[in-house]
Amino acid sequence: MTDDPTGHGDPTGPTGPKRRGRPSRTAAPTGPDARTRILEAARTEFAERGYDKTSVRGIAKAAGVDSALVHHYFGTKDEVFAAAIELSFEPALVIPAVLGDGTDGLGERLARYFIGVWENPASRAPLLAVMRSALTHEAAAKVLRGFVLRRLLERVAEALDVPDATFRAELAASHMLGIAMLRYVIRAEPLASADPEKIIEMVAPTLQRYLTES
Amino acid sequence: MTDDPTGHGDPTGPTGPKRRGRPSRTAAPTGPDARTRILEAARTEFAERGYDKTSVRGIAKAAGVDSALVHHYFGTKDEVFAAAIELSFEPALVIPAVLGDGTDGLGERLARYFIGVWENPASRAPLLAVMRSALTHEAAAKVLRGFVLRRLLERVAEALDVPDATFRAELAASHMLGIAMLRYVIRAEPLASADPEKIIEMVAPTLQRYLTES
Repeated sequence: MTDDPTGHGDPTGPTGPKRRGRPSRTAAPTGPDARTRILEAARTEFAERGYDKTSVRGIAKAAGVDSALVHHYFGTKDEVFAAAIELSFEPALVIPAVLGDGTDGLGERLARYFIGVWENPASRAPLLAVMRSALTHEAAAKVLRGFVLRRLLERVAEALDVPDATFRAELAASHMLGIAMLRYVIRAEPLASADPEKIIEMVAPTLQRYLTES
Repeated sequence: MTDDPTGHGDPTGPTGPKRRGRPSRTAAPTGPDARTRILEAARTEFAERGYDKTSVRGIAKAAGVDSALVHHYFGTKDEVFAAAIELSFEPALVIPAVLGDGTDGLGERLARYFIGVWENPASRAPLLAVMRSALTHEAAAKVLRGFVLRRLLERVAEALDVPDATFRAELAASHMLGIAMLRYVIRAEPLASADPEKIIEMVAPTLQRYLTES
C-alpha cells in the first residue's frame, strides 16, 4: 500500500493543522491503491450490511477516503455495487481458461471449479452477499443481470460449439447457483453436509451435457 | 365462507356495543374457515412485506381476527410461517403422484410440473416470497430447511429406487430452484424469456438421470 501525502494536493501538508473527528486527508490513499481499497470496503459493506443499508458515505468511511473520491472513481452506489460484483466474480473470468482445455472432462473441471469457489469462505461470502442482494433488491438484480448476461455467460458461450450456447451456459449456472443456495444458505440436508467430491461426481455429467452435447 | 357469530363465545353477542377502531368480534370467522383465512392472510403478508416486517398482529388484522386466535391456531410467528410455507408447497405434495406413474418419462413429468408451478403467478408469488425470506433470514431458512428436508425430499426419495435418493432428489430440486431464481427473480436473459418447453426439454434428461440412474 502506497501512502503519498503529496499526491492529492492537500494544501495543509503533512505538518498542517488536523481537523477533529475526521481522518487526516494525508492518510487517505490515492490512485490505484485507493480504488482497490474502496472496492474492497464496498464488498465488505455490501456483504455485511446488505444492499439497502450500504451507503457511499459508509463505504468511503470504511475505506478511509472522502465520499467524493468514491463518486470520482465509481459514480453512484449502483455503480460501486457493479464494480464490487465484478471484483467478486473475478475468479469466474478464468472460466474461459477452464474451457480452453477442450471439451473432454469439461463438465467435471467446471463443477470442480464452481464448488471450489463456493467452498472457499473468502470467495463465498461476497458471492452470497451479491446473490442475497440481487434476490431482494431490483437495483441489485439489474446490476447482476447486466453483468451475468453481458460478461460471464457470453464469455463462456463464445468458447462453446453448441446451438443456444448462452442459454445452455445459463442452465449450467442455474444449477450451480441452486446448489449454492440449498447447501450454503438454506443448509438443507443431505446436500449441506455432502462431500464436495460426491457433488462434483453427480453434477459433472449434467454440465458436460449442457455445454457440449447438441 | 361461514360466518357464525355464536361460535366463539363473544359475551357481547351480535347486538352488544361495538368498540371503536377495531373490527367487531362478531365479524370474525372461526373454526376451519378462520384457520384458512389466517393462513391465506399470512401468506400474503409474508409475500408482500417480507419475513421481518410481518407480525402476528398484522396477520390477524389482515384476516379480520384477534391476534389471540392466530396464537391459538399456530403459536409463534415462525410457526405461522411454517404453516404458510406448507400451504404454498401443497402442490409439491402431489409430486409422489407424479412419481407414481413409474420412471419412464419421469424427468419430463417433473420438469413440466415444476415449470408449471413457477409459470403460474398465483403459485409463483408465495414461493418467491418464501425463498427470499429463507435466503435472507435464518429463522425462515430454518423453517424451510425442516420442511424441505422432512417432507418434500423424503416423500420424493421414498418413491425412488436409487442409492442416496434424498441427495439426488435435492440435487434435482436445486436445479429447479436455480432456474427459478435466474428466470423469475434476477430475470437474466436468455433464460428469462426462454420458451418453457425449451427449458423442460433441456432439463428433463438431467432430472431423469438424478432420480432414476444409479
